[in-house]
Amino acid sequence: MTSPAEAATHEPPFEILVSRAFGAEAFFELGDLLPELAEDLSGIEDRLKSVLQSGYPPLTEAVLYACTRGGKRLRPLLMAAAHRSLGATTTKPVHALAASFQLIHTASLIHDDVIDHADQRRGRPSVLRAFGLPTAIVAGDYLYVRAFELASEYPQAIILRCGEACASLAEGEILQEACRFDLTISRDQYLGIVTRKTATIVSAALASVGDIAGSTASIVEALAAYGRAVGIAFQLRDDLLDAYGEPDLLGKPLYADFREGNPTLLSIEAYQHLDGRAKTEYERLFARHEKRPRELHKLRTLTDQTPASAIVSAEGDRWASAAIRALDPLPHGPYRSLLERLARAATTRRY
Amino acid sequence: MTSPAEAATHEPPFEILVSRAFGAEAFFELGDLLPELAEDLSGIEDRLKSVLQSGYPPLTEAVLYACTRGGKRLRPLLMAAAHRSLGATTTKPVHALAASFQLIHTASLIHDDVIDHADQRRGRPSVLRAFGLPTAIVAGDYLYVRAFELASEYPQAIILRCGEACASLAEGEILQEACRFDLTISRDQYLGIVTRKTATIVSAALASVGDIAGSTASIVEALAAYGRAVGIAFQLRDDLLDAYGEPDLLGKPLYADFREGNPTLLSIEAYQHLDGRAKTEYERLFARHEKRPRELHKLRTLTDQTPASAIVSAEGDRWASAAIRALDPLPHGPYRSLLERLARAATTRRY
Repeated sequence: MTSPAEAATHEPPFEILVSRAFGAEAFFELGDLLPELAEDLSGIEDRLKSVLQSGYPPLTEAVLYACTRGGKRLRPLLMAAAHRSLGATTTKPVHALAASFQLIHTASLIHDDVIDHADQRRGRPSVLRAFGLPTAIVAGDYLYVRAFELASEYPQAIILRCGEACASLAEGEILQEACRFDLTISRDQYLGIVTRKTATIVSAALASVGDIAGSTASIVEALAAYGRAVGIAFQLRDDLLDAYGEPDLLGKPLYADFREGNPTLLSIEAYQHLDGRAKTEYERLFARHEKRPRELHKLRTLTDQTPASAIVSAEGDRWASAAIRALDPLPHGPYRSLLERLARAATTRRY
Repeated sequence: MTSPAEAATHEPPFEILVSRAFGAEAFFELGDLLPELAEDLSGIEDRLKSVLQSGYPPLTEAVLYACTRGGKRLRPLLMAAAHRSLGATTTKPVHALAASFQLIHTASLIHDDVIDHADQRRGRPSVLRAFGLPTAIVAGDYLYVRAFELASEYPQAIILRCGEACASLAEGEILQEACRFDLTISRDQYLGIVTRKTATIVSAALASVGDIAGSTASIVEALAAYGRAVGIAFQLRDDLLDAYGEPDLLGKPLYADFREGNPTLLSIEAYQHLDGRAKTEYERLFARHEKRPRELHKLRTLTDQTPASAIVSAEGDRWASAAIRALDPLPHGPYRSLLERLARAATTRRY
């Protein structure tokens, strides 16, 4: 177990995470909720770290490396806020499950980075780069296993929902692989990948919070719908930031999707709006397995000649609005407002 | 769900598996048990296949490829035999768990083959070679997830034991990675790797059968000890077969351990018994990251100049005997005899 003091040396304080995600003004608005939420996240963090001690120090080192520092901790934050929005005065009953979902998320990122040959993640070398391929594969497996151990204290229906979300994540990954270098996939196909890779897991996490709180079926469904929509809004923003963000804030170089040939709504729309020689060039560049920096930059400038980024932005806003509307059955209160704000932040965040 | 008839087209009949593993003479001796065991294995197989249908056909194809044809189905067989040895008249209560352990085993093999760059497995291309690295990583993840879904119908203690065994497997993999190209590791270090990579999971599987059957603590401990010892005996035989087996029977080329620089008791003992120029050459060849066929062959002929293979054989026999002794608290009967025979078969099998 890492003491909160030790954890604090690894992690940026919660307040900084919040003001980065919401802007300084929200930081003051959220003032009253911050101490409670900070406590929630620290409780979740403690549960998470309690399962990371392996019997072999180099493995522990790799998984601690993957799980600490950086990361927005969006899933734990959403789960804590959702639980409190349902009237919970302590979020302890969801801590193990939130830690479980956070581990699943981290495991999937580690394996994603192996698949995408990604060198950087959150401002430092990826687990792949820092520890090598064997450790990256095993560390991901290990985190999945620990995640299920954490989930094992919940009823079978919750474990199964968690499993189904992981299975959907795996499907999304394979689906994405099958679409690599293909700019002709439809917007629905793209949303299908995003739903499987990102949205289903957020949706399952929030629906489970509803279950644990003993909510009605309509509240559970509302939270599931909210999670799904926030997940999609979040991923659309990720796609935009990959081409238009600030590498220093993102903690990784731009243009990973161009480089790997992963089509996103941005490149699909850009490709559809280009014509003539520009379209041919976009396609040719996107299909290259090895791309030079100026080729990546060219893809970006060609994208700029189209309304693609505005389209992606608008689509993200639509999903954020859908997320907010989904919250209708929930009781009004400061935590429901926070969930609404988080949905908006998903599409305005800079990292 | 695959019907038994469909399954039969994919799998060699159980009788062939048995006569291959035990020899034709045992086949007749076991005559009375065969129909029951064949039914047990087919029930386990059905549970296993029932969770492999993913929402995306190419993923389903990859996991079916990994889970069908070939494989000795040793874990399911041990679990069914152990359950019946405790007086169970149906093994249905352990089917889901046996399927779960079989999926964990398969998942670990898929990821192992990625780590070891193995092209072949069970007489055909490995998942890595047949489907590529992204699918191999995701298929392994997917099988771990499905394994935990299957385990979720059992009490938390059993899910956790299953999780701990998977965690130990991950540790063993990392430990093995850390020892690559190192012939100076001790026999105990080697047994530590084998225990983590192979024995703990067999031990956990069998102890869980005892739990599910409502056995006393001493029976559960006996089954755990038996599983551990059989697992080690089994792995020692694997190591021998990798240098002395018949590639056609094994379904993969020889010398994978030499090639990857994974020290086993065979190479550790050979290295310790060699001296002078032969020892230097053994070390030099073993340490090469790329080895030519004649270098692999040279490692084998140098090994032949030492008593290494006899030492590994004797060590395997000792573990098989320990496994048999561990069964003492179990009631006598045909299924206890079968477990004894399986322990012996672990060290005499040709594939």
